[in-house]
Amino acid sequence: MLDYAALAVLAEIIRRGSFEAAAAALGVTPSAVSQRIKGLEERLGQVLVHRGPPARGTETGLRLTQHLDQVRLLETTLAAGLRPPGPAVLRLAVNADSLATWFLPVMAALPALYDLVLDDQDHARDWLRQGQVSAAISSDPDPVPGCDALPLGAMRYLALAAPGFRARHFPDGVTEASLRAAPAIIFNAKDALQSRWAEQATGKRLHLPGHRIPASEPFARAVELGLGWGMIPEAMAAPALAQGRLRPLLPDMPLDVALYWHVQRAMAPALAPLTAAIRKRAAAELRP
Amino acid sequence: MLDYAALAVLAEIIRRGSFEAAAAALGVTPSAVSQRIKGLEERLGQVLVHRGPPARGTETGLRLTQHLDQVRLLETTLAAGLRPPGPAVLRLAVNADSLATWFLPVMAALPALYDLVLDDQDHARDWLRQGQVSAAISSDPDPVPGCDALPLGAMRYLALAAPGFRARHFPDGVTEASLRAAPAIIFNAKDALQSRWAEQATGKRLHLPGHRIPASEPFARAVELGLGWGMIPEAMAAPALAQGRLRPLLPDMPLDVALYWHVQRAMAPALAPLTAAIRKRAAAELRP
Repeated sequence: MLDYAALAVLAEIIRRGSFEAAAAALGVTPSAVSQRIKGLEERLGQVLVHRGPPARGTETGLRLTQHLDQVRLLETTLAAGLRPPGPAVLRLAVNADSLATWFLPVMAALPALYDLVLDDQDHARDWLRQGQVSAAISSDPDPVPGCDALPLGAMRYLALAAPGFRARHFPDGVTEASLRAAPAIIFNAKDALQSRWAEQATGKRLHLPGHRIPASEPFARAVELGLGWGMIPEAMAAPALAQGRLRPLLPDMPLDVALYWHVQRAMAPALAPLTAAIRKRAAAELRP
Repeated sequence: MLDYAALAVLAEIIRRGSFEAAAAALGVTPSAVSQRIKGLEERLGQVLVHRGPPARGTETGLRLTQHLDQVRLLETTLAAGLRPPGPAVLRLAVNADSLATWFLPVMAALPALYDLVLDDQDHARDWLRQGQVSAAISSDPDPVPGCDALPLGAMRYLALAAPGFRARHFPDGVTEASLRAAPAIIFNAKDALQSRWAEQATGKRLHLPGHRIPASEPFARAVELGLGWGMIPEAMAAPALAQGRLRPLLPDMPLDVALYWHVQRAMAPALAPLTAAIRKRAAAELRP
């Protein structure tokens, strides 16, 4: 059996970035913290913390911290008298556009402290495969080994631009030449939505020039400000579309991205209330 | 002299994550791309790309890509006839709350493609020290070697909560006990604003339980939804405060975070129009 008291010390160090801060949070001396970790490292025969500063978990150290969080979360499903006091930490990967639109209210379904990790919709599940999160919202339909994937519905994206930008950069409509020249707004290096839409519109893979703005609302506002065109979730764009501050580049050419809720099977019972809340809200907010 | 044509190939591979995608973007064959990189690596005696997939730059590879971007940006300051066509790429570190509030409109000041890197205000300048960005907005007043730091003014944060959350978790006001028990919303592991405010309010360093929500607008909405209390920029909170959806935990206890514009000295001439726009907008939007 692992030494869970020592794992709790390890988790504090990794969360707070220093032995001193962990000692203060736990109400013990820094040397007690240091001895505890040394003992754990010797027993496991592996370094668990890069000493820093800042102190950072090694791959094994991070894996053990995540394991501890999962054990704590499972403890919350015990009968009341057996349950330790205080909330468990639940680490989830959520794509930025879900967080910006429909996800937040479901968090109230579980009395946990949430540690959200952001990733774009094509890669969030990598965290799950690496054992860094207990569950993830991802566009990948294939479950990771040891996980189940539930379909949630599709998030609809529209290719939008400010009216002035559209008139200036697409005077003859959406053509290969105009897409090669007009700056796009791109979330980050992993964001392929703009390229996918351009391929759908022209039948060709194009090299799109673009700004990178890795935050959902600033992304949408950059499009409104005329800095570029970009793919914005329909729900987020609705007010600006209604008021004419945003226009579609092409009518009737949305891009639907299906989303899935991936859950580690061992965590599924503890996460059941959250899973139910997510399914209900997704059914209302996403497209079937 | 470095082989800049080969550097351009390297940059495409790192940006697109594969030799094939870089070849398609450049209109050459994958084997031409591969030979070019092999030649560059042999001349420099270092690996520049981890082959992947996805292909990722080594530390040296990333440093060379950033150098190429800076050279391209400097080229934009040449007389028109000497200037190569097409926009340069400008990589900047911006703290998430500046991006969410005042930063976006200044981007129009330079005809560059922006590659924004997000970091919270206490750490954005690390990117600058590592040579990964040409300039950064940071709360650190000390310039990195080779850089200058211009004071921009202060962003004011308020400790806020939804009225119901405040009544439930702070029935006797802000005390050590209530702060130790009530969940805070925390941006990420580096975000010390909530702890700093709690120390200011109680005179003690406290261990705050909290959710981590690493995106500015979702952070503010989570506070509005009653998931926790948190430090929100005054400008972002104004509408919800006026409508009573958010309340201060304590009256008259803001936290001001001074921000600085750090610029690599070699890039300062090319960035001058952006620097002027940033100073002007910061003077209007931040506190002196």
